[in-house]
Amino acid sequence: MRIKKLIKAMEEKNIDYTIIGPTSNMFYFTQFSDEQMERPLLLIVGRNESYFVAPKIYEEQLSKTDIEIKTYDDGEDPYTKIKIPKGSSLSIDDQLWSVFLINIINKVSPSNILPASKLISKLRAIKEEEEIERMKKGLDIAEKSFLEFLDKIKEGKTECELAKELKDIFYDIGADNVSFEPILTSGSNTSMPHLRCTDRKVKNGDVVIADFGVKYHGYSTDTTRVISIGKPTAEVLHVYNIVKDAQASAEDALKEMTGKEIDSLARNVITAKSFGKYFIHRTGHGIGIDVHEEPYISQDYSEKIVNNMTFTIEPGIYLPGKFGIRIEDMVVMKDKVRVMNSLEKEIFIV
Amino acid sequence: MRIKKLIKAMEEKNIDYTIIGPTSNMFYFTQFSDEQMERPLLLIVGRNESYFVAPKIYEEQLSKTDIEIKTYDDGEDPYTKIKIPKGSSLSIDDQLWSVFLINIINKVSPSNILPASKLISKLRAIKEEEEIERMKKGLDIAEKSFLEFLDKIKEGKTECELAKELKDIFYDIGADNVSFEPILTSGSNTSMPHLRCTDRKVKNGDVVIADFGVKYHGYSTDTTRVISIGKPTAEVLHVYNIVKDAQASAEDALKEMTGKEIDSLARNVITAKSFGKYFIHRTGHGIGIDVHEEPYISQDYSEKIVNNMTFTIEPGIYLPGKFGIRIEDMVVMKDKVRVMNSLEKEIFIV
Repeated sequence: MRIKKLIKAMEEKNIDYTIIGPTSNMFYFTQFSDEQMERPLLLIVGRNESYFVAPKIYEEQLSKTDIEIKTYDDGEDPYTKIKIPKGSSLSIDDQLWSVFLINIINKVSPSNILPASKLISKLRAIKEEEEIERMKKGLDIAEKSFLEFLDKIKEGKTECELAKELKDIFYDIGADNVSFEPILTSGSNTSMPHLRCTDRKVKNGDVVIADFGVKYHGYSTDTTRVISIGKPTAEVLHVYNIVKDAQASAEDALKEMTGKEIDSLARNVITAKSFGKYFIHRTGHGIGIDVHEEPYISQDYSEKIVNNMTFTIEPGIYLPGKFGIRIEDMVVMKDKVRVMNSLEKEIFIV
Repeated sequence: MRIKKLIKAMEEKNIDYTIIGPTSNMFYFTQFSDEQMERPLLLIVGRNESYFVAPKIYEEQLSKTDIEIKTYDDGEDPYTKIKIPKGSSLSIDDQLWSVFLINIINKVSPSNILPASKLISKLRAIKEEEEIERMKKGLDIAEKSFLEFLDKIKEGKTECELAKELKDIFYDIGADNVSFEPILTSGSNTSMPHLRCTDRKVKNGDVVIADFGVKYHGYSTDTTRVISIGKPTAEVLHVYNIVKDAQASAEDALKEMTGKEIDSLARNVITAKSFGKYFIHRTGHGIGIDVHEEPYISQDYSEKIVNNMTFTIEPGIYLPGKFGIRIEDMVVMKDKVRVMNSLEKEIFIV
């Protein structure tokens, strides 16, 4: 049972209590979660007891989990419901809002505070088959949506209009939600890897980057493909093929290589072609309930990638003011990398 | 200028630095924001300097603000970019993830930590006309969507199917996003005020609660209406009319009443009819960039509601296992309460 594994990790790290917010961690342990709001909704895990501290309005919903609930009314001090001795050592959900942590610090005066990821990330990184299945179903929805979306791309539509059309298709086909706001950029905007969309109208000759994912039964997907409106230029094709080779190289990774080593597989290909300084991010990130979680495929991640870890491989080259190229797959480690996506890897020409 | 007002508040509260994440606060001060992710993206405000600490991938985007940017590469320690003397007093964005606060505490050993809401909420609570205009435009989209959505409600559709249809209409009509996942519950599920939706199929005789909002140009809306599929029962109508009277009473509030006093206006009506114990939440909350923000219309909010504050008035009665009723408007204080919604207040019978 997942909470028991957490308690074992707490014993090893000398942590008395773990405090979890209504985040991906709460979903992992209880299958319940919600958007974080100003009323604290906490799961407190001690060595011998677990309970929710929750606003009264959640009582009926939470009663469907098997965990004790201590409710408070609007106007009542929620922190009086937390029974943690002063000076305890705490691990705190990484995504819990700081205002709750500040109030907990003031109440408990903890002897020590660790980010809960130090205890939980290793548990969450290795997926059960059912978790992998949910991601595969999500990918199926996301990829079908993308293929249907290609027909919607027409000169004169703005990036944000296109992003909305892609989202609409996700919902039509059965996504529960997006796993993040899609990135749909065009022309020189594609050199900004985290720009979402703008009012720029797409036009003939544009490179378009679509980086998209859905949530399905609590789990995330994340995929990137490059589209060209009309024939891509020789320069785009040149850069594209380097990125594709870099990705293929990382997708040859074997189990027990470190995140750093897999990052180097991709990075070395790009560096050898003199584009190293334009590959301005890591090669990939773990994915599961959160769209970004451990393990990381980056130069500062020296731990081993073992079987049943799921992560992305997404090298990119970004030429400021010109264009950017990124290709991203989701993969699962099964002795060697197995690509979970089934979309082809070529530029999609529309 | 908004950052100058923050610095003045810092001086009054003896705070040396305020640290803001990519949240509604960052949007308020810079008009830039993003989803919070594992890489810290921080706005540091000192008495004499402000700068971003940001992953390299954000550099080109952030350069469009006028604020200095200190970037770090994947693999580099972001906290080395924060130049804050040990022992400084800090105010921390309430919504900043705890993992970043824990790392900042370890680096800075602050003498004192305040939630930044203690400095910022009062600034944000009083809206400029342009902020009110954005919310009115958002409401216009949300209400038109709701009216169009009424035609979609048919026996046999599930709550979650209906919630998706409502969302689709939002995007069609021009919402940038939802301000929260819509609450679309039916039958006895309506007694859970924060349940989102389930696979329950709606049927003739059901009460349906639709609690919905959109994001438009960075600002949120929030509205609730009750729908009856077929003729409502006498009991539903009885409870509905009490809630409607309670709301009308709170909507008679005048400026400089406290949040508590306005809450009592609604609560007293419900208590007088012996339903007090079934009104399990506060009467309302401020709204702006965040869907919930100061001021709060609740028994523990003793501060005055002054002109140009925007908030909701949303009393409710929840009879577990039977049904719940809530009616919610957005209002702005202009000497007296002015309702921003234009939807009628009666039960919508479909």
